[in-house]
Amino acid sequence: MSSTAAPPPPPPPSDGSVQLFSFEGCPYAQRSRMALIEKGIEATLIEIDLFNRPDWFRAVSPYGKVPLLRHAGGTVYESGIINQYLDEAFPGPALMPSTPLGRAHARIWMDYCETRFLPAANAVVAHGGDEARRQAAVAAFSEVLRFLDREALGQLTTDGPYFFGARPGLVDIHYSPFFERFGTYRELGGAEWPADCERLRRWFGAMQERPSYRATARPTEYHLEARRQMMARRRAVAPAA
Amino acid sequence: MSSTAAPPPPPPPSDGSVQLFSFEGCPYAQRSRMALIEKGIEATLIEIDLFNRPDWFRAVSPYGKVPLLRHAGGTVYESGIINQYLDEAFPGPALMPSTPLGRAHARIWMDYCETRFLPAANAVVAHGGDEARRQAAVAAFSEVLRFLDREALGQLTTDGPYFFGARPGLVDIHYSPFFERFGTYRELGGAEWPADCERLRRWFGAMQERPSYRATARPTEYHLEARRQMMARRRAVAPAA
Repeated sequence: MSSTAAPPPPPPPSDGSVQLFSFEGCPYAQRSRMALIEKGIEATLIEIDLFNRPDWFRAVSPYGKVPLLRHAGGTVYESGIINQYLDEAFPGPALMPSTPLGRAHARIWMDYCETRFLPAANAVVAHGGDEARRQAAVAAFSEVLRFLDREALGQLTTDGPYFFGARPGLVDIHYSPFFERFGTYRELGGAEWPADCERLRRWFGAMQERPSYRATARPTEYHLEARRQMMARRRAVAPAA
Repeated sequence: MSSTAAPPPPPPPSDGSVQLFSFEGCPYAQRSRMALIEKGIEATLIEIDLFNRPDWFRAVSPYGKVPLLRHAGGTVYESGIINQYLDEAFPGPALMPSTPLGRAHARIWMDYCETRFLPAANAVVAHGGDEARRQAAVAAFSEVLRFLDREALGQLTTDGPYFFGARPGLVDIHYSPFFERFGTYRELGGAEWPADCERLRRWFGAMQERPSYRATARPTEYHLEARRQMMARRRAVAPAA
C-alpha cells in the first residue's frame, strides 16, 4: 500500500486529441467507443479495471465510473452525455436528428433505455431463483420490447431499419450493447424475443453489420463469463452483512 | 362508469400554439411551467389530477405522466427533455450554454439531480421512523448539497449566482422546485442546510426572485398538505398486501 510506487495519472490531452477512459466489458463505455467509430474520431483509450481501480482514478472521475472523456480542457462523463458531446463538437455524420422535435424524440428513447428497458432486462437475470418472479420479469421485458417495436421503430421511421431511418445514430448506439447481451438474458433468465417484434429484429440485424458493432461486440460466452467474474468479485468485496 | 359521459380529450393545438398538460403540485411539471415563463412562451395549461386521471389521458400520454407538451404536431414528455425542446425550438433567452462543453456540463448536472440529488432528498423523508436510517440519510443529503456547492457552483461560474453565471438556465430550473420543498425535508426528516454551502444559498436566493419562481412556487405548508393527501390516496388505491 506504499504510495511511492503508485503510477501517476495520465496527463490530460493537450493537443486537441481525445482521451476515453473505458473498460472492455462495460456496455456504457462501449456506447462511447461506438460513437467514436461512427463519427470517425481518433481517440486514445485508457483501460480502467473497474474492479481494481488505480488510486489516481478518483481524481480524474467524480463518480469513479467509466466512460469518461477528456478533450479540449474539459471532462465529460455519462455515456449519453459524452455521445451528445461528440456529436456536437466534431464533424462527421450527424448522430442526432436535425430538428428540435427529432432531437426530443431521440432523447425520449435514450431515456426509455435507462429508465424502463434496462430495469426490465436486469429483472430478468436477477430473479434469485424465484420461478414466479422470473416469469413475471420475462413477461414484463417482452412488453418493453413490444413497446419499443411499436412506439419507437413503428412510429419514428419508414425509410430504414434504424430508429431515425437509413442511418444509425445515438439511439441505436444506446440500445445496441444491451441487445448484444440478449444471449445472457436468455441463458440466465429465459428471455425470448417476442415473435411479433419484426422491426426490432430487422433493426438489430442492421446494427450487427456496423463496423462500430463488429469492432466492439463480444460473444455471449464472453458476457456470461464477465458476469460470473463480476458476481464473484462483488461477493469478495462485500460479503453478506 | 358509463363511457357515454366521458368528455373527449382536448384536440391537439393546430395553430403553432403550445399545450402543456400539468398538475399543480407536481415539481416536474413545475420545471416546464418555469421554462415557459423564462422563455416568454404563451401556452395553454391543461390540468390533470394525477390521482384521478381522465380516461382519455392514456391516449395522450404514453407513460400516463405529466408534464407533457404538444406543439407543431409533436408530443414531448419528460421535463428535462421538454425544456431542452422549448429552448431549441423557440426564440427568447438561451437557457443552455452556447458551447458543446457547456451543454455537456449542463446535462451532467441535470442528470445529477435525477440520479443523486433526488434519491438523497427522498431518503431523508422516507426514513419510516427509523432514527439511525434518518440520520444516515440526512448526512448523505448534506454531502450531496456540498458536492453541488463545490463541484457545480464552485467550478462552473465566477460571474453570477446561477449555475452558468449571470442568467438562469435549465439547470437552475431543474433543481429549483426541489429546493422550494426544502422545508418539507426539514419538517419530515430533519434536513439542514450545511453552513458551508454559501454558493448554494446565494443561488437559491437569486432563484426565489425570478418571476418564474414567484409564479409557480407554493409555501412549505402547501407541500406538506399535498404530501399528506398523496400518501392517503396511495394507501386508498393500494392497501397493504
